[in-house]
Amino acid sequence: MIGGSLTRRLSAAGEAVTGWDADPNTRADAQQAGLAVAPSLAALASRGGVIFVAVPLPALDSVFAALTAAAPAETVLSDVTSVKQRVRAIAGSYGLSFVGGHPMAGTADSGFGAASAELLAGAAWVLTLDEETDLAAWLAVAAIVTAMGCPVVPCTSASHDEAVAKVSHLPHLLAAALVIGAAGDPLALSLAAGSFRDATRVAMTAPALAAAMCGGNADALDAQLSACIAQLDAGRRELSSLEGLAQWFAAAEAVRRSWPAVPSAETEVPAGAHLRDRLLDLGATGGHVVAMRPDGVVVRSGPVTSSAPGPA
Amino acid sequence: MIGGSLTRRLSAAGEAVTGWDADPNTRADAQQAGLAVAPSLAALASRGGVIFVAVPLPALDSVFAALTAAAPAETVLSDVTSVKQRVRAIAGSYGLSFVGGHPMAGTADSGFGAASAELLAGAAWVLTLDEETDLAAWLAVAAIVTAMGCPVVPCTSASHDEAVAKVSHLPHLLAAALVIGAAGDPLALSLAAGSFRDATRVAMTAPALAAAMCGGNADALDAQLSACIAQLDAGRRELSSLEGLAQWFAAAEAVRRSWPAVPSAETEVPAGAHLRDRLLDLGATGGHVVAMRPDGVVVRSGPVTSSAPGPA
Repeated sequence: MIGGSLTRRLSAAGEAVTGWDADPNTRADAQQAGLAVAPSLAALASRGGVIFVAVPLPALDSVFAALTAAAPAETVLSDVTSVKQRVRAIAGSYGLSFVGGHPMAGTADSGFGAASAELLAGAAWVLTLDEETDLAAWLAVAAIVTAMGCPVVPCTSASHDEAVAKVSHLPHLLAAALVIGAAGDPLALSLAAGSFRDATRVAMTAPALAAAMCGGNADALDAQLSACIAQLDAGRRELSSLEGLAQWFAAAEAVRRSWPAVPSAETEVPAGAHLRDRLLDLGATGGHVVAMRPDGVVVRSGPVTSSAPGPA
Repeated sequence: MIGGSLTRRLSAAGEAVTGWDADPNTRADAQQAGLAVAPSLAALASRGGVIFVAVPLPALDSVFAALTAAAPAETVLSDVTSVKQRVRAIAGSYGLSFVGGHPMAGTADSGFGAASAELLAGAAWVLTLDEETDLAAWLAVAAIVTAMGCPVVPCTSASHDEAVAKVSHLPHLLAAALVIGAAGDPLALSLAAGSFRDATRVAMTAPALAAAMCGGNADALDAQLSACIAQLDAGRRELSSLEGLAQWFAAAEAVRRSWPAVPSAETEVPAGAHLRDRLLDLGATGGHVVAMRPDGVVVRSGPVTSSAPGPA
């Protein structure tokens, strides 16, 4: 779904893009949709350039191996999975430049049939910038992603995994725990209304998908779950004090009411010695890259206000 | 807001209803709205019948005392607060019959200006049926509530408090903990999307209101928070097993996808020796009372599908 959407979107933008899929039916569907399809994975790899690997985490290692065997040395690999530290470790075993990616878009569906250029419209797209990441490779991938109209969020693999644990994977755990807690209580389910409905919506995610997301980010999620339980215990200690409890809720209310923040105006960061650090600062403070220029990058210091749908 | 809505709704249904409020401005507004207003609390109390006390929990004790001093012995008191065991204890100090009530409707607003007959349309209305509750008094209150078109859910005070802890108060705690966890992390807030938005919507509730709801039900909420944390730890233990984690999520998914359940057809429960037990069974299995008949009550064994708005 993500690979097909990416290929459709780049094609629609007039970019030269060639795809390949392990499934011959998917290749036939893509050709019928007017997309360029390579005759083999090795043929695709031999073209070099930037290759987006849009496969689930368990398949990444073998695909990276096959691509490394057939691609020119200057080829850059990227991926689209929702966890970045594990992919970084896998990519580290191969010789090609690697820039981890995570488009914040998705639906409960999968496969080429669910692919569309619109799926990625305006979606924030994380590109990892770790110590070993080649900045030129990062800028090459960012140029393609921004050409699709997707804002790029630069960050380290570790800070990505921590952030998505907080705002995506933890909500899935809490939603499931809430539902399981009410499950054996028909009275509770009968009295449940809007707050239960919204708090548990993501519990309708396909269990295999929720497990793959959360299990793939187990280490960061485990740490964030501990932090969340500590925070819940802090709230619990205020249950006997209306004033203390109101203060605890007020801290959350102020942050939630100011989210999502209003994006700032665009500014340009010139290419130069400090570009890597300035990109990392930008992402860490909630900003993103809007476009690439020959002499630098165009950024906004505010957050992405994504129009992308889906359960991300 | 609830008292004004109740008075408006009963008036609109052609029922004889008289109100009173401690605030002279509210009394003037109610009269201007065409509602009958008693000259004093004592005058209202002296009329007897069923009196709904629509004041916050801290004010209930003094209002119950004033009503008991002025009302005929056969008067029935009810209330509209979101916690029932504490109110049961307060009411137990006075000699009048008491039936605890909780309409599952509300908005972030309060006061007579926010009152409307529509606010209560179709809202599930809990009426408590404890050991000491007089069944005739319960049926008298239920007759008024069903006359407003509100389905009545019979249950004990303890089972009510446990149920709302699970489906209303716990979601408020979890939402606040999620927001506080992401609060110091601009990258996380920048990447946050649909699952964070929905999971944290109720964190925008006015902090004093959230604190009053959760603090008022502290004992039941404390126990449900412990159960929820135990459930989260059960999920955490599966983080390293994709299959086990998917099974954990699947238990929640199945329940959430079948909620809200489809209501069943109406049946009639005859008045008789077992009516109290049958009403308690009805509520405990997720059913509700639709209407009162001279010779029994009309019930549905399925849950209420409420059209009521608000953060309940």
